[in-house]
Amino acid sequence: MTATAQKVGIVGATGAVGKEVIGVLEKRGYPMSSVRLFGSERSAGTVVSTSLGDVSIEAFSVDAARQTDVLFLCVDGSFALEHGEKLAAPGGPLVIDNSSAFRRDPKVPLLVPEINAASGKGHRLIANPNCTTAILLMALAPLVALFGVKRVIVSTYQAASGAGAEGMAELQEGLAAGVAGKPFTNKVFAHPLPYNVIPHIDVFQPNGYTKEEMKVAWETRKILDMPDLPVSCTAVRIPTLRAHSESVTIETVRPVDLAMVREILSAAPGVRLVDDPAAKKYPMPITATGSYDVEVGRLRKNEVFGECGLDMFVCGDQLLRGAALNAVLIAEALVI
Amino acid sequence: MTATAQKVGIVGATGAVGKEVIGVLEKRGYPMSSVRLFGSERSAGTVVSTSLGDVSIEAFSVDAARQTDVLFLCVDGSFALEHGEKLAAPGGPLVIDNSSAFRRDPKVPLLVPEINAASGKGHRLIANPNCTTAILLMALAPLVALFGVKRVIVSTYQAASGAGAEGMAELQEGLAAGVAGKPFTNKVFAHPLPYNVIPHIDVFQPNGYTKEEMKVAWETRKILDMPDLPVSCTAVRIPTLRAHSESVTIETVRPVDLAMVREILSAAPGVRLVDDPAAKKYPMPITATGSYDVEVGRLRKNEVFGECGLDMFVCGDQLLRGAALNAVLIAEALVI
Repeated sequence: MTATAQKVGIVGATGAVGKEVIGVLEKRGYPMSSVRLFGSERSAGTVVSTSLGDVSIEAFSVDAARQTDVLFLCVDGSFALEHGEKLAAPGGPLVIDNSSAFRRDPKVPLLVPEINAASGKGHRLIANPNCTTAILLMALAPLVALFGVKRVIVSTYQAASGAGAEGMAELQEGLAAGVAGKPFTNKVFAHPLPYNVIPHIDVFQPNGYTKEEMKVAWETRKILDMPDLPVSCTAVRIPTLRAHSESVTIETVRPVDLAMVREILSAAPGVRLVDDPAAKKYPMPITATGSYDVEVGRLRKNEVFGECGLDMFVCGDQLLRGAALNAVLIAEALVI
Repeated sequence: MTATAQKVGIVGATGAVGKEVIGVLEKRGYPMSSVRLFGSERSAGTVVSTSLGDVSIEAFSVDAARQTDVLFLCVDGSFALEHGEKLAAPGGPLVIDNSSAFRRDPKVPLLVPEINAASGKGHRLIANPNCTTAILLMALAPLVALFGVKRVIVSTYQAASGAGAEGMAELQEGLAAGVAGKPFTNKVFAHPLPYNVIPHIDVFQPNGYTKEEMKVAWETRKILDMPDLPVSCTAVRIPTLRAHSESVTIETVRPVDLAMVREILSAAPGVRLVDDPAAKKYPMPITATGSYDVEVGRLRKNEVFGECGLDMFVCGDQLLRGAALNAVLIAEALVI
């Protein structure tokens, strides 16, 4: 890394992901000469404390946001669609968008830096993947490199944080009511989440899958550059706070060797092998929360696919690898 | 049904499953001339109120328990192994065992009555399947009859009730502490369950699967009478109270027709088709809890297996279909 200090901007600085981006930039010592935080007219004037001192949130404008070197968009897809390309036009910053707006756009790279950073070279607008996809790919990509892959089947255990700070608050309030024997209701989620499991994240598509499920298929294919890879996902919201877990079954091209699986995952950057069942060690939200690494474990040969099947369980912090950390790593790979 | 009133006995009447058996017998109007409840020396004398009046728990003895027509064993496998065959010897009751003790014994039928009641004819000792398996089979068996099956892949979302009343209490106490910002610990589960996901139910096997996961494979093969069917399960405990959910992917022999899937599941006894995503209707613990029917939904063609793939989500009450209801249905099928 060179240490040319950057002018950094964050749009949506008071949201769950925006807050984490500020924290990750500071913790990783990202070289910053200034930080500008942009928000709605309503949040303008709110003061946020950062390693560069207190920063007052400014009302967003394209002109102001273009006066940065790196700009993180931590807002929704409609905002990104409206402003993304203008912000990234020549003379403007490197724009890293956390929304789904550009993920499927063939002109826009979709990056998990440890896997395909090279695809971002020369681009000014980069898409940050869906949280579930980014967590999955950290474990999947090294295995694909080693054994090849024919099929991927994923069932997810997704935390409330995927619905932002409001989702986490709704779960906590519901649980507080629930343990007190009081009624609770839902606004953020389609149904009450405490004591429940909701197999419905994002909107339903004509093929019966949700958009969240299809994002895992679409984005996995794009990041691995395997446009025809068969991927099926079942995305399920459960009553946890901020780490997503995933039960993953793959069929490989070449026979699976578990010793080699362990070796390559132990060496993979951003991955922590947690696979010692005798010591009750396997990936879990309570250990993955707050961690930069994605936990991978419960490794076993899946005889459903003969010699070419592997089952595993992965768990990663939804706000970090699933969003803020991945976004900052993109900036590190492309800017500094 | 004829209405020859039966002398009914329950061993382990104060446990989570034993209590539900009493409730199910009453609600279904099972013809009972008497109810005898058996427990440990410690619980002897405890009075339980039933539809036949207050019943005092007796300390268990083989001789006393054999003075019944139908005996439900709602205790652990070691107890069942020690006493099961003596209890069921000629002259004794029909014994329905909820433990795993005899499930893999080729001499002992393993029944989900809607699917294979006929296999129980003439037997005096019957095994009740693992809860996850029974819930899965309610949805799977009708589809296998229609399309055949080549592979089954299951990821589970299992409630605290699978660990009995103690498990449910530990979750509730942990959540009460958690929402109050206080520390909580674990004794029943391998790790704290509130806000967590634990991919570890029952003990680990040499092949890396847990026994719970292998039960789903072993018992599915036995109930379907398909000893070589490839089944892979990932069994995961989550912080819900008493309904298990399962994400199920199957490869069929013949191409899947979704209209036929819906038709056969709508007509299947013990199954409730809950598959109207536009109206936010799909299987969930909050709707499946307390229901005798297993909910099935999120039906979609899984392109990972071309024309022969189906994804679905099922949810069933762990204590009812997963235990007490299935046990009572066995008695109804074989005794009355």
